[in-house]
This record gives sequence, C-alpha cells and structure tokens, in this order.
Amino acid sequence: MEEMKDRERERESSQVNNEFLLEALKTENLDQFRTEFLEMHPYDQAQFYTSLSDEFRSVIYTYLSPEEMADLFENIEIDEEDYESLLAEMNPSYAADMLSHMYADDAADVLNEINDEQAVSYLTIMDDEAASEIQELLNYEESTAGSIMTTEFIAIEANETARSAMQILKREAPDAETIYYVFVTDQDKKLLGVLSLRTLIIADEDALIGDLMDDRVVSVPVSEDQEEVARKIRDYNFLAVPVVDFQNHLLGIITVDDIIDVMDEEASDDYSKLAGISDLDHVDKSPFSAAKKRLPWLVILLFLGLLTASLIGRFEETLSQKAILAVFIPLIGGMAGNTGTQALAVAVRGIATGELEQESKWKLVLREAGTGLIIGLTCGIAIIFIVYFWQKDLMLGLLVGISIFITLIVATLAGSIVPLLMHKMKIDPAVASGPFITTINDLISILIYFGLATLLMGYLL
Amino acid sequence: MEEMKDRERERESSQVNNEFLLEALKTENLDQFRTEFLEMHPYDQAQFYTSLSDEFRSVIYTYLSPEEMADLFENIEIDEEDYESLLAEMNPSYAADMLSHMYADDAADVLNEINDEQAVSYLTIMDDEAASEIQELLNYEESTAGSIMTTEFIAIEANETARSAMQILKREAPDAETIYYVFVTDQDKKLLGVLSLRTLIIADEDALIGDLMDDRVVSVPVSEDQEEVARKIRDYNFLAVPVVDFQNHLLGIITVDDIIDVMDEEASDDYSKLAGISDLDHVDKSPFSAAKKRLPWLVILLFLGLLTASLIGRFEETLSQKAILAVFIPLIGGMAGNTGTQALAVAVRGIATGELEQESKWKLVLREAGTGLIIGLTCGIAIIFIVYFWQKDLMLGLLVGISIFITLIVATLAGSIVPLLMHKMKIDPAVASGPFITTINDLISILIYFGLATLLMGYLL
Repeated sequence: MEEMKDRERERESSQVNNEFLLEALKTENLDQFRTEFLEMHPYDQAQFYTSLSDEFRSVIYTYLSPEEMADLFENIEIDEEDYESLLAEMNPSYAADMLSHMYADDAADVLNEINDEQAVSYLTIMDDEAASEIQELLNYEESTAGSIMTTEFIAIEANETARSAMQILKREAPDAETIYYVFVTDQDKKLLGVLSLRTLIIADEDALIGDLMDDRVVSVPVSEDQEEVARKIRDYNFLAVPVVDFQNHLLGIITVDDIIDVMDEEASDDYSKLAGISDLDHVDKSPFSAAKKRLPWLVILLFLGLLTASLIGRFEETLSQKAILAVFIPLIGGMAGNTGTQALAVAVRGIATGELEQESKWKLVLREAGTGLIIGLTCGIAIIFIVYFWQKDLMLGLLVGISIFITLIVATLAGSIVPLLMHKMKIDPAVASGPFITTINDLISILIYFGLATLLMGYLL
Repeated sequence: MEEMKDRERERESSQVNNEFLLEALKTENLDQFRTEFLEMHPYDQAQFYTSLSDEFRSVIYTYLSPEEMADLFENIEIDEEDYESLLAEMNPSYAADMLSHMYADDAADVLNEINDEQAVSYLTIMDDEAASEIQELLNYEESTAGSIMTTEFIAIEANETARSAMQILKREAPDAETIYYVFVTDQDKKLLGVLSLRTLIIADEDALIGDLMDDRVVSVPVSEDQEEVARKIRDYNFLAVPVVDFQNHLLGIITVDDIIDVMDEEASDDYSKLAGISDLDHVDKSPFSAAKKRLPWLVILLFLGLLTASLIGRFEETLSQKAILAVFIPLIGGMAGNTGTQALAVAVRGIATGELEQESKWKLVLREAGTGLIIGLTCGIAIIFIVYFWQKDLMLGLLVGISIFITLIVATLAGSIVPLLMHKMKIDPAVASGPFITTINDLISILIYFGLATLLMGYLL
C-alpha cells in the first residue's frame, strides 16, 4: 500500500515537471526550458521527448544542441521501426551531428533500424572519425559481441605508472563509456590484463601498471553470441568485459548496462516464443500489428489441428460404436499438451542458461522419462477411479487411465527431445513454442487413445 | 563454428586447471593449491569447489581462511536447499567467521535459505558488528529493496572537499561493495545527492562535495518491490541506487550485479509460470523433484479437464446424431488455447515491464477484442472453405468456421482480461499460466461449439 503511494507520488511529481516543461515550450521560453530540462536525467528527458507531439518535438530540435540531443537519444525506448520517423523529423545535418555525438555502439544500433540509404547518407555528412567508428561496428553480425561493443574505452600500456595512468584516465574520462576498468595492452594493442579503478586509486603512485594489473583477464571473442557475453558478465559480476579478435587484439568493451538490455531482450524473446508470438517487445498499438505477430503460428497450428481432425476421422467407426469416447478427447489432449509444455520449458531454459552444456543430453532425456512415468502413474490411476465412479464403467476407466499414462510419458519425452534435437541442428530451441508442442502432443495423444480404444473395442462394448 | 571452438578451448583450459588443483588436493600439496587457487576468479573458485566431493571440500576448509572462503561463497550458484548441507560440512565457528566476512546482503541471502535455528546459532558466535548488520537485513520482507540492499556503501557529508572525499574513499575502498558512486548525506544521514567517482576524479581538489554532487538523486524506498528497483537501474543505466526510509535516511545501496540476479530470477519465474511449473531455477537432479514441481498444476488441470469432459457428456445426444462433430473438438479447443496463451503473454509481459501502467487497461482489452476479431475472421473463413472441400458439407463448414470465429474472440479476451483482473486483485498475474488459460479456453470453446451445433442441428442433418 505504502509502495503504491510512493509510486503515485513519484508519477505526480514528474507530471508537475512535465507540465512545467510543456508550458515553457508553449510560451517559447527557451531559457526556462533549458534550465529545467538539462537538469533532468537523460532517461527522463527521453521519456518527456517521446511523449510529445511532433510539433513540440520540432521546437526541441531548435532548443537543444546535437550533443545534448545525443544524451537524450541514447536513453530512448521506442519500437525499432519508430527511429526512422524520429530522425526524419530532424534536419539531416542535425541528425548526423547528433549521431556522431552518441556512443558509437548506440549510434550503430539506431542506424541498424533505419533504411540503408538513409543510414549511408548520415554517415556521409558526419565527421569522418565518428563515421568510421560507427561503420566498423555496423560490419559485425547481429547479436554478436562485436555488434554490441563500444570502441570508446580506456587502454593503457603495461609500462606506464599508476600516476601517469591516472592522468590518462582524467583526460579520457569525458569520452569513455566507463572509466572503472582500465584495459592494459602491449605495444601491438594485444590485451595483457585489466585493472580496476579501485585498485588504481589505492595503489602506490610509482607502481607499474604491468605489476598492478590482473593478467587473468576474462575476454570474449568478437564473434561470441551476446547471450554468452551476458552469462559471463553475470557470473563474474563484471562492470565490463573486453572484446578481442582471434589474435587477442583489444577491439572494444561491452558494459553492464548494454548487457542488461540484452538480458531483457533475450528473456522477452524466450517468453514470447513459448507463447507462440513472433515478437513481444512492446505492447502493440493497433490490433492489426498484434494480429500480424500472432497469425503466423496460429495458421501453422490450424493445419496441424486439421491433421488431428483427419486422424480422428479415421476412427469414426470406433467413435460411432461408442460415442462416450469423444467426451475424453479434450482431457487427454489437454494433459498431453500441458506436460509437454512443462518439459519443453525445462529443456529450453536449461539450454539457454548453459546448465545443460555441462551434462549429457541423454541424462536429461532419461530423467524426463522418469518424470513422465511418475506423472503418468499418478494421473492415470486417479483417472481410472474417477471415470469408474462417474460412468460406472471399469473398462472405460481403464482405457482412459492407461491412455493418460502412456500419453503423459510420450508427451514429456517429446517436450524434452524436440528442443534438444533443434539445438543439435543449430536451430534456436525456443522456436519450438508451447502452442507447437501442445498441438503435436494433441496429435500423439489422439493416436494413442483411439488406437487403444480400437484394440480394446471388444471389451468396451 | 569458430565460436564453438573458442568455447571448447576455454573449457579445456579450465579442465587442465581443475585437474592440476585436484592433483594438488590429492597429494596434499597446500602451497601449490593455494598459489594456483587464489589466482583464480572467485566465480571459477566456486565452480571448482561445488564440483568436488565432500571429502575434498573438507580439505579445502583447512586450506583456505574463512575470509578467502567468503569470497568464493559469494559467487556460488547452487539450489537454495543445498546451502544448509554445505554449511553443515564446516566447523560452526569457521562457517560463522566466513559469513561475517561476506558482504552483509550475501550473508543474509544464505541465512535466509537455512533453518532458523542454525542461522541464529551462526549469528550468536559471529562478531557482533557483522551479526547486527546481517540481522538488520534479515528483517526486511523478501523481494523488497531492503532484502537485497547492502549496507557496505560510502557516504560522505556535503561539506567535505573533493580531496578529503578521495581520502575517505581510499580508506574505505577495501570494504565497500562499490566505490564508483559516493552518496552524499547531511549530518542526520539524510540523503542529499550522489557523486560518481568519475566526477570526483576530474574535479578540482578544493571543490566542495555539496557543489559537485547531483542533487536530483533517484532513490528507492526500502519497501519497494525488487522488480521495480531493477526497472529503475535498467532505465537509468545506474551502477547502484540508494535505498532510503520514509524520512529519506540513507539505509543502504543496491548494486547492478544484484539487480542482474533479480532480473534473471524474475524472467525465469515468469517463464516457468507461463509453462505451468512452480519453480524452474535449476535443471532438476531427480525425476521425483521434477514431478513434484509439475504435478500441482497438472492435477488442477486434470479436474478442469474433467469439467470439460462432463460438459461434452451433456451434449452426448447431439454427438450421437452427428458423430463427425467429435473430429473438430481438438482443433477448436487447441486454437482457443493457443490464442489465449498469446493474449495472456502480452498482458503479463506488459504488466511486468510496467508498460501497461502508463495506459488505460480498457484500451488493452479493446485492442485485444480487435485482434481477436481479425484473427477469428481469418481463421474462421479459412476453416469454412477447408471443411467444405474436405467433407463436402457446407453446413458443417459454417458451423466449425463460425465456432472458431466466436471462440477466438472470446479466447483472446479471456487471455487478456484474466491477468488484468488478477493484477487488480493484487495476485501475481503470471500465476495464470499458459496451461491454465488453455484449459479454461478449452471449456469455453466446447460450450460454444456444441451449443451452436445443438441450435443448428436441424440444418446439420
């Protein structure tokens, strides 16, 4: 309750602030706007900026320098496709200037989202140094360490002293993305070690960097998957990791704030795939864009569902002999889908966190078989009794119970084997979504249930 | 491919290292072990330590001081229930000593996982200062800012100079969890502002802290939910946030590495709930523990499935008049479940990321109604044609198509309204798992399908 109040108070105070800023924009009070606005955290600036109509935004472009705008733009949170229209609102040279003042990795992220032609034109008018830094980052494949690293880091050679290192640090502090780690290289820019500012601060001023540094530095290759980088930063509690090429040349660094965004993205990605949606980055603004993201899976599942339907069609004779069989179709299919989704989630999550790398895949499958057996026995026996007491038909109870028993074992196994196979075939196992495995298991369960029913028909009548 | 090689090489090199350490343990070569082991990153130390048999671990306790062990223990990654047995292996005074050397927040986390009696006994033998710091953290409710904050931070009064602040920093650096933010307070320990080490380093030595600091400091109340804290650190790219009481007294700080763990935990939590598993922290070691986590949901769903079965039972007459109706049960139920899961995922995620806070809930429901309409129309019309050409029965095609149309709209709405209602009732909306909404929608779809079939029976025969 108290928490709610706190949040409301916060929202209110930021609303007051926003109204004040809006008033300053309306009355064209440049000084008042700048004094208040530049005091705000760039994230709050970005929130205010994106809440405005394009009319007011165009005023902001005349009130803020490209450099000030760059700070704001680094903290913006919008749908990827909206970057293009925001940049188009600006004067091209203003936009290019702003991009050149952003951290190179953030600028590259923005340019990745807009059309190539527009991106090239910005790079052409931008100053050469910034352009080449951004260009370099654009060359790396998406979702690799190279694509998320920044080239604005502080590197110091091993033969410097703590004193001179401190001077370099002070000089480069305004531009570097982090000054809390100093990376130590040899004359060929090969990575030798790392030194935290903490160590540097308490070190003797005459000590050599080479002696102070930690030479067991953990680095990531430039082609490393970003999820793997996130895992390292998380496991080792780093604020940044260095990125190197195959000859150990230091190319850039990845900072913890970028990794938080990666983790968020990957978690959201796994989650939306489990739910069978192609992309769940932001709540959709229109029903059309929402439907576009959901229909692809639904159409595939529709055809899989028709397959199930035609399978039941083959058992029409069995069904017409004993219509009560139809009653248990959703129960058996549903249970199969649910266990399958559970097993799938365990396998996908195990692959994503790397836990399954450390042990044999077959051990997981064996364990899942055991789990399916326990679950199948529990639910199967329960169903036998329930159906017997409900329908007063022991044979029907046995049929449904045994079907559930077999189905749950097979469904659990399918839920774990499918993602493992996909991982082996280098397909992202998260693609095997919950709805997909549910529908597959529906099909399997029908086959088991009606197959068994047809076999046992003599006893059932 | 290259990436794979890199990872393998890494694993190999750490294996060589582990074998060397194991050899040193076997031959009781204390010096060799310590030289090599203490050079390793605490995370790697922890990985090696947890991979050992208890026999070797007991040797380690004699080789490492409690302080050295504390470094390792802070980086350990095991199931919560395993802390108890690890601590029980140690001599009680060794364990207490180790806990007192850990960061207070990490020690509190460990003590939270073991039984109360044991925890109290450690706190009793521990030195008083450490015990009271840990004790204080243990008082905060789980998942609040208070429970994850650390009390080892650096606070400086506003009237100090940059020079004296730097001296305080150097003195306190070894104990503080981060030295990269300095928190500025008045004489009553009330939070006034924050100063990054970056600013401090480039500042004039005689400047006053009060002038250098940023007084628009973002803090979190001690009772704040940890997910909300994570959101702030992510949005503002902080390395740490201060935690205050309702009078704005500085109580502690939360650092970004703790937040990464929180994010991981929350993401894993949402994911496992969507899949209908109570807890998916680690891959289970035995089929029994896995079954224990999955059965609760399955049993609930079993009974919901029986409800669906009894519902179909009521339509037995309809079914016996036209057995082909049974063929489409899994198709309709499956589609309903799948759209429901998609809508659910969108709503749960929107609530979790706070995006839905900013807009009216009814807007989401309206949008979902629109989405359901589009999806329902697309799939419904497709089905009419498919069933017509397959079964040469226009009325059957219309029945199935219209059922799908209505079902998908209702299922989409159910998928979004259920989590919103739960959120309103202060229940975690993630509890409405995919399997749950699937089963509910199964029930609804059967009602619509057979209801419609019974109504239209005259035309169907």
